[in-house]
Amino acid sequence: MTDAPRRIDLAVIPGDGIGPEVTAEAVKVLRAVTGDDVDLALTEYSLGAEHWLATGETLPDGTLERLRTHDAILFGAVGAAPGDTRIPSGLIEREFLLKLRFSLDHFVNLRHSRLYPGVPSPLADPGTIDFVVVREGTEGPYTGNGGTLRGGTPQEVATEVSLNTAHGVERVVRDAFARASVRRGKLTLVHKHNVLVYAGHLWKRTVEAVAAEFPEVAHDYLHVDAAMIFLVTDPARFDVIVTDNLFGDIVTDLAAAVSGGIGLAASANLNMDRTAPSMFEPVHGSAPDIAGRQIADPTAAILSAALLLRHLGLNAHAARVEAAVEADIAARTGARSTATVGDAIAAAVS
Amino acid sequence: MTDAPRRIDLAVIPGDGIGPEVTAEAVKVLRAVTGDDVDLALTEYSLGAEHWLATGETLPDGTLERLRTHDAILFGAVGAAPGDTRIPSGLIEREFLLKLRFSLDHFVNLRHSRLYPGVPSPLADPGTIDFVVVREGTEGPYTGNGGTLRGGTPQEVATEVSLNTAHGVERVVRDAFARASVRRGKLTLVHKHNVLVYAGHLWKRTVEAVAAEFPEVAHDYLHVDAAMIFLVTDPARFDVIVTDNLFGDIVTDLAAAVSGGIGLAASANLNMDRTAPSMFEPVHGSAPDIAGRQIADPTAAILSAALLLRHLGLNAHAARVEAAVEADIAARTGARSTATVGDAIAAAVS
Ligand SMILES: CC(C)[C@H](C(=O)O)[C@@H](O)C(=O)O
Ligand SMILES: CC(C)[C@H](C(=O)O)[C@@H](O)C(=O)O
Repeated sequence: MTDAPRRIDLAVIPGDGIGPEVTAEAVKVLRAVTGDDVDLALTEYSLGAEHWLATGETLPDGTLERLRTHDAILFGAVGAAPGDTRIPSGLIEREFLLKLRFSLDHFVNLRHSRLYPGVPSPLADPGTIDFVVVREGTEGPYTGNGGTLRGGTPQEVATEVSLNTAHGVERVVRDAFARASVRRGKLTLVHKHNVLVYAGHLWKRTVEAVAAEFPEVAHDYLHVDAAMIFLVTDPARFDVIVTDNLFGDIVTDLAAAVSGGIGLAASANLNMDRTAPSMFEPVHGSAPDIAGRQIADPTAAILSAALLLRHLGLNAHAARVEAAVEADIAARTGARSTATVGDAIAAAVS
Repeated sequence: MTDAPRRIDLAVIPGDGIGPEVTAEAVKVLRAVTGDDVDLALTEYSLGAEHWLATGETLPDGTLERLRTHDAILFGAVGAAPGDTRIPSGLIEREFLLKLRFSLDHFVNLRHSRLYPGVPSPLADPGTIDFVVVREGTEGPYTGNGGTLRGGTPQEVATEVSLNTAHGVERVVRDAFARASVRRGKLTLVHKHNVLVYAGHLWKRTVEAVAAEFPEVAHDYLHVDAAMIFLVTDPARFDVIVTDNLFGDIVTDLAAAVSGGIGLAASANLNMDRTAPSMFEPVHGSAPDIAGRQIADPTAAILSAALLLRHLGLNAHAARVEAAVEADIAARTGARSTATVGDAIAAAVS
């Protein structure tokens, strides 16, 4: 008699553009790697720009409540084609993606940057790139606070308010220190405290305070502008970067670019208190220009699925996926279809 | 009988660290290139971190009023050594540098990025890099608006308010279009309007409106995160970038890094209405670690002096300095002292 396999109940949101294609491959790999060890239940949700065009819904309350009942969410990408004027600009991003991150309290937006052997970097001499960015996910300039006075007149004033709380900053800083303590023991705070004094000092003071709990972790500080320079001249200097929501958005796209492009960049939106499901998504968008042609690289989606496995405690399964991806990348020779990449990695982990 | 030479009355603020060394070379080149054509009057002002330590003054009202009387300001760099705890963090940056930019209404912060022949880029395949960033200089998240509630408690809330006005955005956008119209005719707005809705839409609407006045200029839009990617994968795509104060800070450091480093990056803080003097400064900081050793590269300061000449209508003189810098860079073989570089360029323009 064997134990019943562990049941894992996933929500899958393929989304728009290349989202469905890359998500299908991530699901394929999840099924292959978990095999008989896990009873994998998948529930697909139709959400995103296409869904909005068809129904006028972004993320209805009922859907959000159903999403809350799952163990985790696997997400592809959402977004209309840039020229599509039927969809108000930024609507899906805010009312679907950011609403999910905020509602499910995804306070750790985790993005690894690793230059895999065999992957070309745009940098002439990239060195070893292997760091993680812990981006705050529920505060900062992303809260939608702000407004417009006298809109459309020559007297218009538009404001954006960055909101930062001790609660929000401390929990993400502590998470980043914990990650650094099991990596190379180095944490870099990225901010701009010489200009953004109030938020900057909260972040700085919090890092100093939490550092006392992690004597094994060295920490330093970079202004965001200086961080730009180091990310292209010496990315090897980074181990764990912790930063706010907007700086994290900027830093992680640059980090993805220098480490081989957003076709490989995975991300996790983590609720580390586990009061709601975490969400796993490639950093790339819906890329409508190449959608439906089976030419998108599903690797970022597959690596995001590995982060999902890790978050659910399936560390050995996650490691198998990551090793298979690494081997697949190293063996790359020419262009392969989206499904071919997924098939190869699925076969390797079965 | 010849005309009396034109009188130009400059304020010179050498500042801290390597500021005095690089500024001395910029002055040397200015004197050499203007020769008998210009009656160059220089007034040196002692300001910066060292001055604050000695006097407790950042930028007294009387000094600011005297600075207003000059035709232009040549500025080196300010800032204490990172570890120097005697100076409140960010004080000099805000109470001196940003106060000058705001008081003198330097609404165009202009930064060229050009990869000179012979200069190594950290990019493997940089292509042709030749673009300018028109960074707004008097608004955005730099206004010092914000505050702290319940500071130092677990209930702390810190805010930063980005202020954007139709007046402020329109004038800098118009300036950027004008620059694009005499360059390659392409303007890229960089913002994050899918998240920063209020400010973002003001910027977007303003670009659309001003574009009608410049039918010869094509314009496009990039989210700041996407701009990061293009700056390292295809910097040749840019001609003129227009963006807000904070995004401009970030973009210009990355732009400087990919085009050969901040040792070459010049900048102008321009009051294009000419209601107050403009200020010219290298993008780099005071680099206290290498100060006083005559190893700093004065090229950024010298190129900033060329921007000064151009702003004062001395276009031929500016062009001579730029050509001399280009020739000097192309002929570089090994390390030279700060003064040796200045001497060589001064000799070439005499
Ligand atoms: C689509 C957008 C709202 C989002 C963000 O800014 O967070 C994206 O750029 C990302 O990084 O996941
Ligand atoms: C020193 C600092 C306030 C300044 C800025 O952020 O503008 C600097 O980084 C720059 O770019 O000139």
